[in-house]
Amino acid sequence: MTPYLYAVPALGVFALIYTWVRAGWVARQDAGNERMTTIAGYIADGAIAFLTAEYKVLGLFGLIAGAFLFYLGSTSGNSSPVIVIAFLIGGVFSALAGFIGMKIATKANVRTAQAARTSLSTALNVSFSGGSVMGMGVAGLAVLGLGALFIVFYKMFVPSGLANGQEMEKALEVLTGFSLGAESIALFARVGGGIYTKAADVGADLVGKVEAGIPEDDPRNPATIADNVGDNVGDVAGMGADLFGSYVATILATMVLGREVQLGSADQFGGLSPIFLPMAIAGMGILASLVGILCVRVKEGGNVQGALNLGNYISVVVSAAASYGLIMWILPAGALAIRGVSFDAMHVFYAVLVGLGVGTLMSIITEYYTAMGKRPVLSIVQQSSTGHATTVIGGLAVGMESTVLPILVLAAGIVLSFRAAGLYGVAIAAAGMMATTAMQLAIDAFGPIADNAGGIAEMSELPKEVRERTDVLDAVGNTTAATGKGFAIASAALTSLALFAAFMGTAHIDTIDISNADVLAGLFVGAMIPFIFSALAIAAVGRAAMAMVQEVRRQFREIPGIMEGTGRPEYEKCVAISTNAAIREMILPGAIALLTPIVIGFLFGPKVLGGLLAGVTVSGVLMAMFQSNAGGAWDNAKKSFEKGVLIDGVMQYKGSEAHKASVTGDTVGDPFKDTSGPSMNILIKLMSIVSLVIAPHIAEHAGGPGASAAPAPAPPRFEQAFRPRVRYSETLVPAAARLLRTALHRE
Amino acid sequence: MTPYLYAVPALGVFALIYTWVRAGWVARQDAGNERMTTIAGYIADGAIAFLTAEYKVLGLFGLIAGAFLFYLGSTSGNSSPVIVIAFLIGGVFSALAGFIGMKIATKANVRTAQAARTSLSTALNVSFSGGSVMGMGVAGLAVLGLGALFIVFYKMFVPSGLANGQEMEKALEVLTGFSLGAESIALFARVGGGIYTKAADVGADLVGKVEAGIPEDDPRNPATIADNVGDNVGDVAGMGADLFGSYVATILATMVLGREVQLGSADQFGGLSPIFLPMAIAGMGILASLVGILCVRVKEGGNVQGALNLGNYISVVVSAAASYGLIMWILPAGALAIRGVSFDAMHVFYAVLVGLGVGTLMSIITEYYTAMGKRPVLSIVQQSSTGHATTVIGGLAVGMESTVLPILVLAAGIVLSFRAAGLYGVAIAAAGMMATTAMQLAIDAFGPIADNAGGIAEMSELPKEVRERTDVLDAVGNTTAATGKGFAIASAALTSLALFAAFMGTAHIDTIDISNADVLAGLFVGAMIPFIFSALAIAAVGRAAMAMVQEVRRQFREIPGIMEGTGRPEYEKCVAISTNAAIREMILPGAIALLTPIVIGFLFGPKVLGGLLAGVTVSGVLMAMFQSNAGGAWDNAKKSFEKGVLIDGVMQYKGSEAHKASVTGDTVGDPFKDTSGPSMNILIKLMSIVSLVIAPHIAEHAGGPGASAAPAPAPPRFEQAFRPRVRYSETLVPAAARLLRTALHRE
Repeated sequence: MTPYLYAVPALGVFALIYTWVRAGWVARQDAGNERMTTIAGYIADGAIAFLTAEYKVLGLFGLIAGAFLFYLGSTSGNSSPVIVIAFLIGGVFSALAGFIGMKIATKANVRTAQAARTSLSTALNVSFSGGSVMGMGVAGLAVLGLGALFIVFYKMFVPSGLANGQEMEKALEVLTGFSLGAESIALFARVGGGIYTKAADVGADLVGKVEAGIPEDDPRNPATIADNVGDNVGDVAGMGADLFGSYVATILATMVLGREVQLGSADQFGGLSPIFLPMAIAGMGILASLVGILCVRVKEGGNVQGALNLGNYISVVVSAAASYGLIMWILPAGALAIRGVSFDAMHVFYAVLVGLGVGTLMSIITEYYTAMGKRPVLSIVQQSSTGHATTVIGGLAVGMESTVLPILVLAAGIVLSFRAAGLYGVAIAAAGMMATTAMQLAIDAFGPIADNAGGIAEMSELPKEVRERTDVLDAVGNTTAATGKGFAIASAALTSLALFAAFMGTAHIDTIDISNADVLAGLFVGAMIPFIFSALAIAAVGRAAMAMVQEVRRQFREIPGIMEGTGRPEYEKCVAISTNAAIREMILPGAIALLTPIVIGFLFGPKVLGGLLAGVTVSGVLMAMFQSNAGGAWDNAKKSFEKGVLIDGVMQYKGSEAHKASVTGDTVGDPFKDTSGPSMNILIKLMSIVSLVIAPHIAEHAGGPGASAAPAPAPPRFEQAFRPRVRYSETLVPAAARLLRTALHRE
Repeated sequence: MTPYLYAVPALGVFALIYTWVRAGWVARQDAGNERMTTIAGYIADGAIAFLTAEYKVLGLFGLIAGAFLFYLGSTSGNSSPVIVIAFLIGGVFSALAGFIGMKIATKANVRTAQAARTSLSTALNVSFSGGSVMGMGVAGLAVLGLGALFIVFYKMFVPSGLANGQEMEKALEVLTGFSLGAESIALFARVGGGIYTKAADVGADLVGKVEAGIPEDDPRNPATIADNVGDNVGDVAGMGADLFGSYVATILATMVLGREVQLGSADQFGGLSPIFLPMAIAGMGILASLVGILCVRVKEGGNVQGALNLGNYISVVVSAAASYGLIMWILPAGALAIRGVSFDAMHVFYAVLVGLGVGTLMSIITEYYTAMGKRPVLSIVQQSSTGHATTVIGGLAVGMESTVLPILVLAAGIVLSFRAAGLYGVAIAAAGMMATTAMQLAIDAFGPIADNAGGIAEMSELPKEVRERTDVLDAVGNTTAATGKGFAIASAALTSLALFAAFMGTAHIDTIDISNADVLAGLFVGAMIPFIFSALAIAAVGRAAMAMVQEVRRQFREIPGIMEGTGRPEYEKCVAISTNAAIREMILPGAIALLTPIVIGFLFGPKVLGGLLAGVTVSGVLMAMFQSNAGGAWDNAKKSFEKGVLIDGVMQYKGSEAHKASVTGDTVGDPFKDTSGPSMNILIKLMSIVSLVIAPHIAEHAGGPGASAAPAPAPPRFEQAFRPRVRYSETLVPAAARLLRTALHRE
């Protein structure tokens, strides 16, 4: 084994050291007066209360899933019970990523508010430092976890040291458990956090702003603490777990495909080079991100957005240049090939460039569709003059239209990266795009921290200029949130395709033919999953928001002096409503995502499951873009009224009828952009990973040792229509399968 | 040639004679007093004005498309310039179907209003007679056109009389032109009509009901005539052209697949039996529908919905029984096979049963999701108590959720009908489902007639009990409209699959493998088309409605005495706004539907086109269900307030805040359920038909005569990424293709 492998976890440790040092710096900043620390304490307590409740449920889930994985792992020669360890470590790391983000965010928010009393640049420094702690922490955990576990499993399962044999297949299959753990926790964090934050937000707005006529973040509103907690559990912890999962899944899928790459000439890593490359790029990406992070500076009155963009572009360019060096150093000079497509090292670099290009274009397009002053948002503003309904119609149309360019970019990216280096190229494109995850996440996490800082400034009744400074940061944060979502969707799409390709290899299938009726049916069912998933998430927000509305109305009615500011609202009751709703409502969508591929895979075989995955991915990407961008556009259409908008020659401001209509649009968009939309990313990744994990167990047994055990393919006759094409390894719950078949046959 | 073939067009003529006789009966009914005839005259004139304007544009389109088809037909040995004739006849027949429906609807509406002065049963008799004229007319035209043209082309192109040779392939390819003509006109009729009706409806409601506070259909509202015209051009003419297109496409696709069926033993039709069968089922379906139509009767105070359901079930059962007889008589007793799947006559009958089952289940499920008093609509009603936004959120969630069961039914239908008789089984299932189209359409068209009758009664200030009777009919019409949409979506989905299968045969491809990067990119792009198509349609409604709002506001302001009823509103200006908007805005979505498959097919070949079609179909079906059902549910949530609803223990009625929120939901749903949602059906069918028409020109030349002309498949290398895989028959615009390739290569 090459000693260079140890550099990967070492870089992860380096990132974590940065995280620790920087977090210490943030904690040492001034946290402001007593009122500020009290309020920040409420928010931090609410956030921890939610995380504790969530992790309890997830611990139970981990035990059940772990038991199932243990069974799977111990009954197949292609896997191992050790996969449970990988799974649990992945889950714990993902939870830890969320926890780190939440901790630092709830420290940085109040310190940013305090810093904003001094200047914009110190406020940016504190809030962006908070974001960078989160970004480097997530990336560091991912690289450390994957890198270290790979070394362990390589030593454990590959005594021969052969890079592309059966043993390595097993080692990588076990490593998939790490990704499964990460992505499962991510799903629950995203969905639960998304429901939490929007139930609180919608509930607080409907009663506070609309009914009682008090401003946002007013301390008299009982739901306001829950609303601020929501920013942390949804936008910070949810996004962190999401990108942690994407990062891990992308690297892993590339490694799995790397095992299939045939080397025309020997490399200097004992044949490991195509597997080592994605880990090396990820480790290098930490350094590239750090360079970008250190370049983010702004003077008083300067352009915050410009400073962030500069840092981002620097890290992208550094990462591209370093990738070139890494690829040329790691891959051998001669020809390589995967599944009949031949390529060389230069082509792999082209694929990285495609990935970086796709990520950048996606962010730019997303910004166009959601930014103030651009045609899409302006059209919604105009339509708000004719009422609530036309505002909603306008936003829906913008959201649907916003899918066109990203899909064309994505399709071109798939085709180009495939032509560059086959399926390995598609995976490497995703890996290249994800290399700067730490930087992306730093920018993303900075937004909710600034948002929270503004809330704390409002609730603590700080001077007006403080709120103005945090508002500048918050406005930038809204844009970065939108572009970050564009990046997250693109990365999820490419990651899913890489996983899809890895799944096909592990399940030993060459084609997934949609002219086959069963596969086509799988495609239909798969494409439907994002719709039911979104429906459940949206409806959950609606229900929880109604409960919140009723609680807030009750407090306004029953607590004496609450509107005069003399009675203290029962914040904790609202926090409890959001927490309980989020925990309760995340179960069903999570179960659908986890169980569907298992059921379809074992009952109908890997090809139908492949059709299902294709359907989920295609429809999930579209629904993610539609919902996220519609929500972002509505949000900024509403914000446009703060400075006033010109409609039919008349300036309209906050409080006008048109503004009220725009608030309706924004409220409709809330669950779209912060609950169901971003959950799509994890949905499509998680279903692909589950499929990859069960792939050895449902593999087509074409001539393999289990071939005789598989039932002969039945002629597709009507009488046998209800006979599921059960594909399972000889040892897997055969009694249960027999039972199921008997029940279905009624023979 | 078997003389039984002549029975098919004969049954078409029979249906048209019924249409003519029954239309005469309707025309002889009392049209009421002068005010009624005046108002009905406005509506009829507006409808004809729209049709005239629309057909002018479509005539121009027909000339251009005809020229392109002539070129295609005259440059390929597998087609013929005669296809232009078929195309034009198809277009004219489709326009005629819309025209017949419009004519009878604008006659039946006022006569229904007059009949409602006497009794509910006579009103139902008149309005349902109008519907049956439309249903039988559409079915008659379809069966006559397809049946007669098949005989002509059979004699013209198949001198050998061989049922499954190259000659027959050419004859059927030419016949595809008929379907292309029908479906193109249908698309424009659906989209144009949908934009027309909703621009008028939304515009009339926003200013009339909301701003001026006058009731629906009040004659003082300048947009009210346009609104009533819209019911005819959208719901009647649009739905008629839609189902005419589905009917023709289904039969045709089954015939194309029938040519591929291998007979184990001789039949009595010279080998024609699998091609003849779908036409025979369609002809028989006319008789079965007639039986059902004649059974629809209701007594005063009786159950109108029950009467319609009874008639429908009778025609389904008659059609199933008669199908059994036809199949056993027409198909030979021995084994049959298509593409490696063997089956016999009984299995074909099973496939018909699957089709009938899918259609029935789809209608039932759709009714559940959109009917008053059921959980989905009740949940929206409850959410309307917390405002506009939660009402919209609730409806969106219901719409998304409503895709689950229909997709599972559809997937099961695909799998079962395929297992019954391969791809021929899938097509036959669609044909069986469509057999009772005449009856379905009679039920569908009755709704807008009753709706119009209510409008005329209101505008003519007829006694209150008249409006109450028409309201009973209208309420039933709302439910049948929803279930009719469920049926239309199911039929479009199965039809598209049949066309998809036919396309693969004609393009000589066996598999469409989504693990191929190009195909996968096609799948993504295809799935995006329904989103941009919906976005364009919805945005068009929004824009046109705003123009309508401004015109109505202007008239209220400038015409003296308009609100007192002494000044006459300028109805024709509103009619002109809707007409112009509809014509202008239908062009771009129509062009996308028509041109995308051509561009993709010629540039990237049949397999990528196959991926595109799969994407369009899957995403189109989901978007159709989501939008139609959300719209239907919002509509009935709003209607629930008319009788009062119980929210949190308080009865709420029209005029309450909750009711206003429900009106917002309904208005958002209007373009969903009547413009973009139903257009999806035609979109997916039309793109499949265009692909089928160009299939011989982009066919894979595996060993065919043109094999040497096709460029050798290039290795998928990055440097060649921008080289389109141009696939075209040797003679097709080679100069243009060279030009294009040169431009793209820049070599």
